[in-house]
Amino acid sequence: MSGNSKGYIDSIERIVVDLIEKTGLKRKNIKTICIGIPGALNPHTGVVSLAPNLGLRNFNIKEKLRKRIALNVLIENDVNLGALGAYKFGEAKKSKNMLAVFIGTGIGGGIIIDGKIYRGSNYSAGEIGHVIVDKNGPVCGCGKNGCFETLASRAAIVKNILSDLKNKKKSVLNKLVLNNKQIKSRILAAAVQSKDSLVIKHISNACDTIGLVLANATNVMNFDMIVLGGGLIEALDYFMLPVIKESFKMYAFKDASKKIKIIANDLGDDVALYGGIALAEEFLKIQI
Amino acid sequence: MSGNSKGYIDSIERIVVDLIEKTGLKRKNIKTICIGIPGALNPHTGVVSLAPNLGLRNFNIKEKLRKRIALNVLIENDVNLGALGAYKFGEAKKSKNMLAVFIGTGIGGGIIIDGKIYRGSNYSAGEIGHVIVDKNGPVCGCGKNGCFETLASRAAIVKNILSDLKNKKKSVLNKLVLNNKQIKSRILAAAVQSKDSLVIKHISNACDTIGLVLANATNVMNFDMIVLGGGLIEALDYFMLPVIKESFKMYAFKDASKKIKIIANDLGDDVALYGGIALAEEFLKIQI
Repeated sequence: MSGNSKGYIDSIERIVVDLIEKTGLKRKNIKTICIGIPGALNPHTGVVSLAPNLGLRNFNIKEKLRKRIALNVLIENDVNLGALGAYKFGEAKKSKNMLAVFIGTGIGGGIIIDGKIYRGSNYSAGEIGHVIVDKNGPVCGCGKNGCFETLASRAAIVKNILSDLKNKKKSVLNKLVLNNKQIKSRILAAAVQSKDSLVIKHISNACDTIGLVLANATNVMNFDMIVLGGGLIEALDYFMLPVIKESFKMYAFKDASKKIKIIANDLGDDVALYGGIALAEEFLKIQI
Repeated sequence: MSGNSKGYIDSIERIVVDLIEKTGLKRKNIKTICIGIPGALNPHTGVVSLAPNLGLRNFNIKEKLRKRIALNVLIENDVNLGALGAYKFGEAKKSKNMLAVFIGTGIGGGIIIDGKIYRGSNYSAGEIGHVIVDKNGPVCGCGKNGCFETLASRAAIVKNILSDLKNKKKSVLNKLVLNNKQIKSRILAAAVQSKDSLVIKHISNACDTIGLVLANATNVMNFDMIVLGGGLIEALDYFMLPVIKESFKMYAFKDASKKIKIIANDLGDDVALYGGIALAEEFLKIQI
């Protein structure tokens, strides 16, 4: 076990032990532990093939952790868990074929088909953040150019705003940037609230791109619902959703999109926790 | 029944009666008639909601035809039938999640998920020809701009070639166009064979776009196989497939595409006929 993976297992163990102590739960009443992981993994074997932000590669979390905590362990990609949570416990439970897109630093997607999480041929479905929108666009972390997340993530919006500020464009953010403060979703929301035209322009451009990518995915997959979540959407859904829907309508093929609903995630950050319940139901064949 | 729909039912009836007569088949041995239809339809109810090229709208073919020929009738979208045929009887039978794309005058797609045809939320899945590649691109028949089929169908390639010929660009096609001969896939193939640089340029551009759209679909859906068919691919697969694969590799997200195979349909025009067999198996729960 490399340093990173040992540290990861150590902290999960600590969290579990702490939680059991604090809540006074009895071990025999704990059916399973569910972990959402930002990376590529196989939920059946419990092996994470790659999770760059956790420093994990080809690592069997399920096995290692079960030995430490003597409890059943389930793992799933964090975005898939979010999609599952939205589908089973949120507004989206009325849908059949659903796409969930979470917009934050990057952009991730999860897919429900016929009421079940769709994981794809090698557990890599839903990489909508790496759909190429402009092949001559900005370089992405994945090495390609013009991926969706290089144009419409919070990181992309902030990058474009900072570039305009360097070119002496006016904005209420000027002061914040001078103070080197990080521009988070909440700050962008405040700027929109105060009708800052620079911020509104860049967020509107992102919404146009979001509408285009959602329309293209729907043209192929004929989804009946799209759930949007993540920090940016949660802070700005009242502003972004109408612009995204307008753009979607412009780019969507009529037949494939006439019955679709586009909604904001109504479970906030907890959506992935709810996904954990649904995952346990799927894998343990129990109703919680 | 409008004039068009009556004419359509009349011709299908005539074909069926003729075929029974010529083959000497006994009616009691005919399990069903399967019809592939270029349009939006519900295979369960037998209602075609819209098939512009046949002049049909909200028309129950299954019911009307059954009354005439006293045989069971199944209908399916023609591209879905092609995808089914490729999946059940072609090279693609080894796959689990497959995309079939047929490139001709337009571009149509069919999707297999977990070994079954995926029809979407209102039977409109697979409209990959209307994925928008360039929102400032040429106007499409659907009213939008820059749809995949306005850039990479045979019709689009021919349009671009004709426009270059009008601008006095050199090509072996010059003589053919002067004679007002229609440029079909076979003629394009002959031009490529004779190393005509104008035709090669436009077909290569189309292949780049095809690779991009296939990569984007795979980034989202993590398919394990893509089958390419239609007149253009059948005439030019030896030239187009390597260019498409090269482009796909450039645009695909590594994780979502590492196990994918891209192949040419090996059943030719018969692929939809084979799809009819698979459709009968699905709906009648029989093994043929």
